[in-house]
Amino acid sequence: MKTDIEIALEAKMNPISLIAEQMGLAEEDWEPFGHYKAKLSDQLLNKLADRPNGKVILTTSINPTPAGEGKSTVTVGLGQALNQLNKKAVIALREPSLGPTMGLKGGACGGGYSQVVPMEEINLHFTGDIHAITTANNALSAFIDNHIHQGNQLNIDPRRITWKRALDMNDRSLRQVIVGLGGAVRGVPREDEFTITVASEIMAVLCLAADLQDLKKRLSRIIIGYTYQQEPVTVNQLGFQGALTLLLKDAMKPNLVQTLENTPAIIHGGPFANIAHGCNSVMATKIAAKLGDYVVTESGFGADLGAEKFLDIKTRAGDFEPDAVVIVATIRALKMHGGLNKKDLQQEDLGALEKGMENLEKHLETIRQFNLPFIVAVNQFSSDTQAEIDYLRKWCEAQGAPVSVIDVFTKGGEGGIDLAKKVVKVCENKSAPLTYTYDLSDSIEEKIQKIAGKVYGAEGVQFSTQAKKQLHQIKQLGYGQLPICMAKTQYSLSDDPSQLGRPRNFHITVREFRLSVGAGFIVALTGEVMTMPGLPKKPAALQMDVTEDGTIKGLF
Amino acid sequence: MKTDIEIALEAKMNPISLIAEQMGLAEEDWEPFGHYKAKLSDQLLNKLADRPNGKVILTTSINPTPAGEGKSTVTVGLGQALNQLNKKAVIALREPSLGPTMGLKGGACGGGYSQVVPMEEINLHFTGDIHAITTANNALSAFIDNHIHQGNQLNIDPRRITWKRALDMNDRSLRQVIVGLGGAVRGVPREDEFTITVASEIMAVLCLAADLQDLKKRLSRIIIGYTYQQEPVTVNQLGFQGALTLLLKDAMKPNLVQTLENTPAIIHGGPFANIAHGCNSVMATKIAAKLGDYVVTESGFGADLGAEKFLDIKTRAGDFEPDAVVIVATIRALKMHGGLNKKDLQQEDLGALEKGMENLEKHLETIRQFNLPFIVAVNQFSSDTQAEIDYLRKWCEAQGAPVSVIDVFTKGGEGGIDLAKKVVKVCENKSAPLTYTYDLSDSIEEKIQKIAGKVYGAEGVQFSTQAKKQLHQIKQLGYGQLPICMAKTQYSLSDDPSQLGRPRNFHITVREFRLSVGAGFIVALTGEVMTMPGLPKKPAALQMDVTEDGTIKGLF
Repeated sequence: MKTDIEIALEAKMNPISLIAEQMGLAEEDWEPFGHYKAKLSDQLLNKLADRPNGKVILTTSINPTPAGEGKSTVTVGLGQALNQLNKKAVIALREPSLGPTMGLKGGACGGGYSQVVPMEEINLHFTGDIHAITTANNALSAFIDNHIHQGNQLNIDPRRITWKRALDMNDRSLRQVIVGLGGAVRGVPREDEFTITVASEIMAVLCLAADLQDLKKRLSRIIIGYTYQQEPVTVNQLGFQGALTLLLKDAMKPNLVQTLENTPAIIHGGPFANIAHGCNSVMATKIAAKLGDYVVTESGFGADLGAEKFLDIKTRAGDFEPDAVVIVATIRALKMHGGLNKKDLQQEDLGALEKGMENLEKHLETIRQFNLPFIVAVNQFSSDTQAEIDYLRKWCEAQGAPVSVIDVFTKGGEGGIDLAKKVVKVCENKSAPLTYTYDLSDSIEEKIQKIAGKVYGAEGVQFSTQAKKQLHQIKQLGYGQLPICMAKTQYSLSDDPSQLGRPRNFHITVREFRLSVGAGFIVALTGEVMTMPGLPKKPAALQMDVTEDGTIKGLF
Repeated sequence: MKTDIEIALEAKMNPISLIAEQMGLAEEDWEPFGHYKAKLSDQLLNKLADRPNGKVILTTSINPTPAGEGKSTVTVGLGQALNQLNKKAVIALREPSLGPTMGLKGGACGGGYSQVVPMEEINLHFTGDIHAITTANNALSAFIDNHIHQGNQLNIDPRRITWKRALDMNDRSLRQVIVGLGGAVRGVPREDEFTITVASEIMAVLCLAADLQDLKKRLSRIIIGYTYQQEPVTVNQLGFQGALTLLLKDAMKPNLVQTLENTPAIIHGGPFANIAHGCNSVMATKIAAKLGDYVVTESGFGADLGAEKFLDIKTRAGDFEPDAVVIVATIRALKMHGGLNKKDLQQEDLGALEKGMENLEKHLETIRQFNLPFIVAVNQFSSDTQAEIDYLRKWCEAQGAPVSVIDVFTKGGEGGIDLAKKVVKVCENKSAPLTYTYDLSDSIEEKIQKIAGKVYGAEGVQFSTQAKKQLHQIKQLGYGQLPICMAKTQYSLSDDPSQLGRPRNFHITVREFRLSVGAGFIVALTGEVMTMPGLPKKPAALQMDVTEDGTIKGLF
C-alpha cells in the first residue's frame, strides 16, 4: 500500500471555494488561504444562530498503546462514510502540533484513505494558528520580564511566575532554563521553562472561547504569577489583553479543509490532552453542527482522559451535548492490554484478547454513566483473525453494545458504511440529557474523587502536601467552582503507565495543581507530566525533504 | 490628520485577484491568502526568465536620527507616483518584524497616505514567513541539542555552538540563557542566546537564495558550531537540510499586496540590517523587475550600511544592478546631524542645517563611487521653512545633485510626482556598470579597509585580538573570498553612535567576526551589536486592542 503522504499528494481535492459553496456558505463567510484551505468568519456562528444543530458524534478510544488505535483515521473515515450515505457530514478535528510531526509521528491527519488534506500543509504551518499562539504566549513572557526589568511596579516575585514560555517544538533542552543572565541590560535572572505551544493556556483559552470578546475576557483573567505577598497577578493588571487579542484575532477563525473524499473538515485548535482538555475549539464544533446534519469530532487519548474532559469541560463551556459516542478499539491494542508484547501482535491470541477486553469494558461503563448512546468501532488491521473478530463481536453483543468492524484505512468511507448506518441509528437513542461526572458546586476534592472513582475505577485519591497547600490557595482565591482538568498518563486507567488493562484496587495521587483561570479550569497533575516532549534518537525530520521537482517526502 | 491605522483601515483595496490580473499574472502564478494578500509561485521567476527587466530604483537615506527620515514612506510614495504617471511600477519591500511592532514602532508599512495595506495584517503575522523562519531556526537548535543528548556522534563541543535560538520578539531576558538544566532527561546544560528572528542566518539565506534548491544548498552548508577538535559542523552533517527546506518552502514564495493607491507591492524577507544585509529577498526584487517597468526597493538604515550591503552583497548574489538610487533626507534629521536637539527641531535653524549637510554629502560621494545615478528626495515636514528648503535645494544644485522636495506622507503619490518624473530621467543616465567597493579576491582585511575608507570615511581599521584569531580561522577554512557584511551602528558613519554629521580622523574597530556560510558572507562586528532588542518601559503593545465591533487599535 502507498504511504500516507503518497496517497495525500494524489488526492483529487476540490477547490475550497466549491467545498464552501456546497456547505451553503456565502462569500463573506470565509477567506481563502491558498486554493485548498480557508478561514471561516468568526461571525459565522452568530449568523447561523437560528439554525437547528446537527447531531454531534464524539469519537474516543480505549487507552492508547504502541499498537495504534487510529482514532483520527476513524473520525475521518466515519465522516466520509456518512457522506457516502448522503448524510450531510462535517468533520471537526484538532490542528496537529509541529513538535511531534518533526519528532515521532511525521503527521497527524488520519491515515491511509481516511485523511484530511492538504495534509502536508495541515501538518506544517497550516494557517498559522499555532504560530500565533506561540507568539502571544511569548509576548506575554516578554511583557512580564520587561515589567520586572523596568521597575516591577506590580511587585511580581520572579520566583513565583507561573507563566511559561512556549515553542511548537519537541525540545527537551528547554524544559528547564535560566533566563535574564548577563547583567543589567539583559533583564532579571530567573528560572523558566518552555512548554510545547499546545500546552500553553492560550491554546486552551482559544479553544473554549465563545468569540473574540470572550477570548479577550479570558486572556485578561489569566494569572501569570504571584507577588512577593503571594497575591495573584493577572494579564489585566499588566494591561496587555488588547495586544494579545490582536495577535490572536485570526487564529480565532476556524479553518476549513476537506478529506480525501471531499467531505468538509473544520480543523481548529489543539490543546494538549494532559495539561489541557485536548479537544478542538468550541467554535469549530458548534459551527460544524450548524453546517452539517452530522458532526464527527474527536477527543484526545482514551475515554478516561479525552472524553471525560470533552464532556465535563468542553460541553459545559460551549453549552452543547453530543448525541452519540464512538469508542474506537483495535484487536492489536486490546491484546496489548491483555499482556501481549508489541512484537507478538501478529499472532492470533484469544486469551490475550479476552483479558484485554477489560479495558474496553471500563470505557463502555464510563460512557454509560454519562448517559450517552454509544457504539464500538473496531478499526480492523490485516493481522486480525476471523476468530478474534468473532470473539470481539460476541463480547460486545453480550454487553448490549452495538459494534461495527470497519476498515476505513484501506477503503476510505466505504470501509465505514456499516458504522455510519449504525451511528445514525444510535443517535436516535439519545433521550435524556448528559449526566456530568460531577457538579461544579462540588468541592475540588469531591470532583476529583468522582472522576477517579467513576471514570478510572480508583478506590480513592491522595493529595500531596504541595497539592493540599495549593488547594487551600485556590479556594481562598475563590476558584473552587471551576471544573477539573485531569493530567494523567494516557496509557493506563490508573496514574501508573505500566498498569494496562483494567487496574483495580488503586489510588490516584494528585501531586500538584495548576490554576488556569483563563481557560476556566483547575489542572490536577498526577504522576510525572511533561509539557515539553523530546526528540527521539532518529527524529522523523531526518526523512523529510523537498526534492528538486518539488515533491514532499517524509510526512507519513 | 488621521493616524496611519485609521488611514489604512479606510483604504479602498482592490481584490488581490484584480491586482494580480492587472500585473498579467496567470492563475497558476499565485495563491490567495485572504482577499488582499497573495503568495507568488516560486516558479514565477523561471517562467518570466526571458522577459526584459524593468528599471530597479534603490531607496536609501542619510544616517537615521530620532527625527525620522521616512524611507519606507518615500519608497511607497514614489511607487504610487510612478503609477500616477502611468509607468508600470512595482514596490519591493521588507517584511516587518513583530518585535519592534510590539515594542516601539507599532508598525512598519510606510506612513500617512503612502502605506502598503492591509497594514494591520502585514504588521502582525502576514503570511507566516517569519514564523516559518523562527520554526526552522529553533528546529535546528532542537536537532543540535538532541544530537548531543543522544550520544554526540559528531563530537560537537557544547561550548562552541554558534547556532542560536530565535524568537520574533523584543525580549531582552533571552539575550543570555542557560538551557538543558534539570538532569539527564532535560538535555545537556549549555549557554545559549535567542536572537530576534530577523537576525537568524536563515532569514539571510532565504533572502539571498535563488530558488528552493539553492535554499537547500545554502541551509546545508550553515556552520552550527565546532567540534572539540575545533572542526566546523554543518547542517549537512546533521542531515536536517531536507526538513528545514520543507519548513521553509512556503516562506520562499514572495508575497503580493498593494499600496493605498493600489500600486502592487511585493513584500518578502526582512533580514536585520546589522547582523545581516538588511534588504528584501533577491527573488522578490527580481520578480518585481520582471513584472514592472520600474521597481522601487529599499535597503536598511543609511547608505553607509544598507546601500553598501545591497550593492556589494545582494546585487552580487542576485546578479543584477540597480539603475538609480534615491537618497532620502529630511531637514529635521539634517539639523540633528548639525547638532540640534530633537526638542528644538520645530525652529528654523539654517546654521544647524548647513552643518548637517555634511552627512548627506558623504552619502552622495558614496553613491557616486558606486558609479550609480542618484537623486536626493527631501521628505518634507510641516515644520520645514521655505528658507531651509531653499538652502537645501541650492546646496544640491551646487553639488550637481538632482533633488526633489516631496510630500508623499500627506498627499500620497501626488506628493511625489516631481520626484517620479526626475527618477525616470535619472534612470536614463546609467551608462556604466556598478563599481563594487571591493573585489571578492581582496583579502578580508582589504575588503573591510575599503568599506571603511570609501564608504565611512575612516582613516583605518583596527582588529581586536579575538577578531584576528577568527580571521585566521576563517581563512584556514577557505572562506576568505566571501563578501563582508558590516555590523555597525546605524546612527553614525563611524562606529561610535554619538558621532553625528560627518566624523573625520577616526578608525573603525572590528571586535568580532561571525561566519555565515549559508548566507554567504562574513559578518564583521564593530562596537556593541545587539541581536535581540528589548522592550521600552511603555511598549506600543499597551495601546493595541480589538474593540467589541472588531476595530483594530494601536498600530500606528
